[in-house]
Amino acid sequence: MIKIGILGYGNLGRGVLGALKQNDDMTPVAVFTRRNPSDICLDDKSIPVVSVSDMANWKDKIDIMILCGGSATDLPVQGPEVAKLFNIIDSFDTHAKIPEYFSKVNDSLLESKKIGIISVGWDPGMFSINRLYMNSILPQGKDYTFWGEGVSQGHSDAIRRVQGVVKGIQYTIPVEKVLKEVREGKGRDYTTREKHIRVCYVVPAEGADLKKIESEIKNMPNYFSDYDTTVNFISDEEFVKNHSAIPHGGNVIRVGKTANATHTIEFSLKLESNPEFTSSVLVAYARAAYRLYSKGETGCRTVFDIAPVLLHPSKPEDLIKNML
Amino acid sequence: MIKIGILGYGNLGRGVLGALKQNDDMTPVAVFTRRNPSDICLDDKSIPVVSVSDMANWKDKIDIMILCGGSATDLPVQGPEVAKLFNIIDSFDTHAKIPEYFSKVNDSLLESKKIGIISVGWDPGMFSINRLYMNSILPQGKDYTFWGEGVSQGHSDAIRRVQGVVKGIQYTIPVEKVLKEVREGKGRDYTTREKHIRVCYVVPAEGADLKKIESEIKNMPNYFSDYDTTVNFISDEEFVKNHSAIPHGGNVIRVGKTANATHTIEFSLKLESNPEFTSSVLVAYARAAYRLYSKGETGCRTVFDIAPVLLHPSKPEDLIKNML
Repeated sequence: MIKIGILGYGNLGRGVLGALKQNDDMTPVAVFTRRNPSDICLDDKSIPVVSVSDMANWKDKIDIMILCGGSATDLPVQGPEVAKLFNIIDSFDTHAKIPEYFSKVNDSLLESKKIGIISVGWDPGMFSINRLYMNSILPQGKDYTFWGEGVSQGHSDAIRRVQGVVKGIQYTIPVEKVLKEVREGKGRDYTTREKHIRVCYVVPAEGADLKKIESEIKNMPNYFSDYDTTVNFISDEEFVKNHSAIPHGGNVIRVGKTANATHTIEFSLKLESNPEFTSSVLVAYARAAYRLYSKGETGCRTVFDIAPVLLHPSKPEDLIKNML
Repeated sequence: MIKIGILGYGNLGRGVLGALKQNDDMTPVAVFTRRNPSDICLDDKSIPVVSVSDMANWKDKIDIMILCGGSATDLPVQGPEVAKLFNIIDSFDTHAKIPEYFSKVNDSLLESKKIGIISVGWDPGMFSINRLYMNSILPQGKDYTFWGEGVSQGHSDAIRRVQGVVKGIQYTIPVEKVLKEVREGKGRDYTTREKHIRVCYVVPAEGADLKKIESEIKNMPNYFSDYDTTVNFISDEEFVKNHSAIPHGGNVIRVGKTANATHTIEFSLKLESNPEFTSSVLVAYARAAYRLYSKGETGCRTVFDIAPVLLHPSKPEDLIKNML
């Protein structure tokens, strides 16, 4: 039984607890929080909720610590710190800062002689793996990544900062026409803006100036001004009913040429819950980390370094028989 | 420079030669054939064509031998034999016989202290890897594999054995309605027959009884009788113009559930040339085999054992920067 610690109890931490129930070879040992532990109520009362300040005492009771914090402020601090004590898995997703983060986490892991796999999830994660496979097989070609239809947390936050907005959510949606062009091998270079539209749902404050809200959102630099943006005003009731989930997904497509032929490879995700899916990926990679650590491996890894066979609980010979 | 030998000069062998031109770190050293070498004319005259009987003399001049024979009769003999002399890559694709084949090749490789990766291609191969990733991430769910639209060699051969058929080709095509059902999460268990239709194009002999040919094809047991089959009679001219390529492809889809959500993962291929794509996969895995052998690894592997990072020529740190 692989003993899993969970650091952080937000959407991702909850997702990891749920995913562990689907994996018989792993068990949650404790949830660690910066909040007052007694404020957190787990469905399963047998799992202790512990203050992060006590984490070091759990050093020998946990095989893999899954970091469920955010990439903006939590992980840059937690990753290198926690790696001094535990084998870690995280979903650090600030693409541009991954090399720097990798290096810091790696230093800690080499010191503690532990192993870690960072930037696990779907982008970075499953999308990255597919880009790598596709590029390895078809060296001459072009990659396209589309995101959505799904909720962008950053853009939803931006909407909610507009005066007169009580609730707001933003969906990123690929432009169907461009997707079709790409799939038909007629793709060219696109900006992110050309590939996606942004659709917002807003619950306005009573008596708010709707025209002003709409204009402020549509003209917001960086977030919306460069995009084809739609703003829909809805009731609180409708918001709760239709916009409480956090769906996401997207497509990675590579169109490549060999000597006499063109080929299209596509990987796509349609996720009803972004955090639940990401958590499921984290848990599968926790298994891989455990196996590598058991063989004496140490240091920082990414999904690129992990052989697929390490992710599944079955024996290699059964996988060959049933899935190859 | 990784020195590649090519055993067998059919569609796959030609494809490997083409793929090597797209990979600067690998070079073809010789093509081995069972035919009279002087009967084979390569575009690039600098590459020697050698009789298989002389293969042993090339033992120290080749890093990886790519076996380009068929799975029915060539590979079961060649795999275990050639593995006694060389590191090998092959595309053995008789799913049910892979465990037995693996074991024989592995014995040879352990004896010769060489490495081999078998059953490389797209199914088995890229499709298998995707099944494994999908199942690892979403343990509770259902897999679906669709093949086509593409040419089935076995079914085309069967058509050509019918009296009065001069030329014949068969396309396997997924049933669009079923694909849609699956993608919408409404899939159930299907037989291969329910998921695919078979479309045949036949050039009949002059004066042949078309009704009889059509009926013989449609009622052929194992191949067509259980399927929704269409037979089209066309001219030789049209056949040459529209049916000389060997396209293929398909879709692997998994619909899985986590605690409160359903997710759909899909991997799909649209290949203008089945052998050219398969060859490109073989070549990428030759690089991985070379790297593993250079680290002292020996024995038989499948695509499940190969970390994605091993497939690409770039340095890991560049892959992290550019693709993660």
